[in-house]
Amino acid sequence: MSKVRVSSFAISLDGFGAGPGQDLQHPIGVGGLALMDWFFHTRTWRRMHGHPDGETGIDDDLATRGLAGIGAWILGRNMFGPVRGPWRDGSWKGWWGDEPPYHTPVFVLTHHPRAPLAMTGGTAFRFVPDGIHAALRQAKEAAGDRDVRIGGGVSTIRQYLEAGLVDELHLAARPVLLGAGEPLLAGLDLPALGYDVAEHVVGVRALHVFLRRRA
Amino acid sequence: MSKVRVSSFAISLDGFGAGPGQDLQHPIGVGGLALMDWFFHTRTWRRMHGHPDGETGIDDDLATRGLAGIGAWILGRNMFGPVRGPWRDGSWKGWWGDEPPYHTPVFVLTHHPRAPLAMTGGTAFRFVPDGIHAALRQAKEAAGDRDVRIGGGVSTIRQYLEAGLVDELHLAARPVLLGAGEPLLAGLDLPALGYDVAEHVVGVRALHVFLRRRA
Repeated sequence: MSKVRVSSFAISLDGFGAGPGQDLQHPIGVGGLALMDWFFHTRTWRRMHGHPDGETGIDDDLATRGLAGIGAWILGRNMFGPVRGPWRDGSWKGWWGDEPPYHTPVFVLTHHPRAPLAMTGGTAFRFVPDGIHAALRQAKEAAGDRDVRIGGGVSTIRQYLEAGLVDELHLAARPVLLGAGEPLLAGLDLPALGYDVAEHVVGVRALHVFLRRRA
Repeated sequence: MSKVRVSSFAISLDGFGAGPGQDLQHPIGVGGLALMDWFFHTRTWRRMHGHPDGETGIDDDLATRGLAGIGAWILGRNMFGPVRGPWRDGSWKGWWGDEPPYHTPVFVLTHHPRAPLAMTGGTAFRFVPDGIHAALRQAKEAAGDRDVRIGGGVSTIRQYLEAGLVDELHLAARPVLLGAGEPLLAGLDLPALGYDVAEHVVGVRALHVFLRRRA
């Protein structure tokens, strides 16, 4: 059955899912790339970017698993870009160039309406100004039998967790310190929200933990 | 050279170093034993408690390393026991029975003076009412060439980290959720306090991370 999931989302030892001060030079905030430094080594990521190499093993298996079977994505406005407020000239088309790595409809949460944006390779950005429930409804419809992946960022994932709308959450706990940034789980009582640890798998560069919502 | 260190201290995926509501039945707070559930499986811990079995491997190696070369311990009042305020009849002698697992002088931080307490097996509890610096001074003197281990709990470790007095911190990041309790690192900017990740080692039941203070 189609699931709503968060996959391959990294948190630092001190609990941050992004660094502070996101801008054009720091898509995941200052120091935030260290969160992704398990993913960047995987064959999955390297192939996505046209390189024939990359590591195999548990981290790579989970990176692949996170990308399989997805029919639609949901992203927060800030994960789509550093532009704030109205979209101005509409020249910002995401961090990913002409061919973003999604290849599905991607629903972007925003308070500011904008026309859909079709990219090379099947990625279709659609801007949803009427909230997380509306975005999820549209994403589920677009995904059909496949899963909806909530890509991030931190604020978006927290909103969907608080609303009890995430079925499965795969976190990659990373042995890095950020010191400041956006805490992913602080103040969320996940067991009270219905989440338990279903599984954990030890990788080379991360401790992978799968949380699932109780039926 | 003698070091001040925290070893084998577990934190949950959601950042807690102890559960909420510590009392006689819940020495590490409600749900807190899940934090220790890597340590309980090690041969190191099993042997400390008279059992011939237990698992070997990375988790066990690090449990042993955490206990080696220690000349004195420092504990917070609540790690010593659930009694609050004045010591009343002095009948509380720690969680550990007649022969505690320390076998060294143990300096207990407290606002309430109390006479020293000599236990079987070399553990000698000494109660220090004049603050963390005084306790560390006394512990270093007692430890001589050996290390001072700050056993916990959360509040004590945070105070020593904030004062920049910990040389090495070994955290066991555990794939468990507590939902509530005492956050170990929230609000502490460890890189700004001078700490970096020096090493990480992947165990079976925990991701072990070693933080060291820059010289």
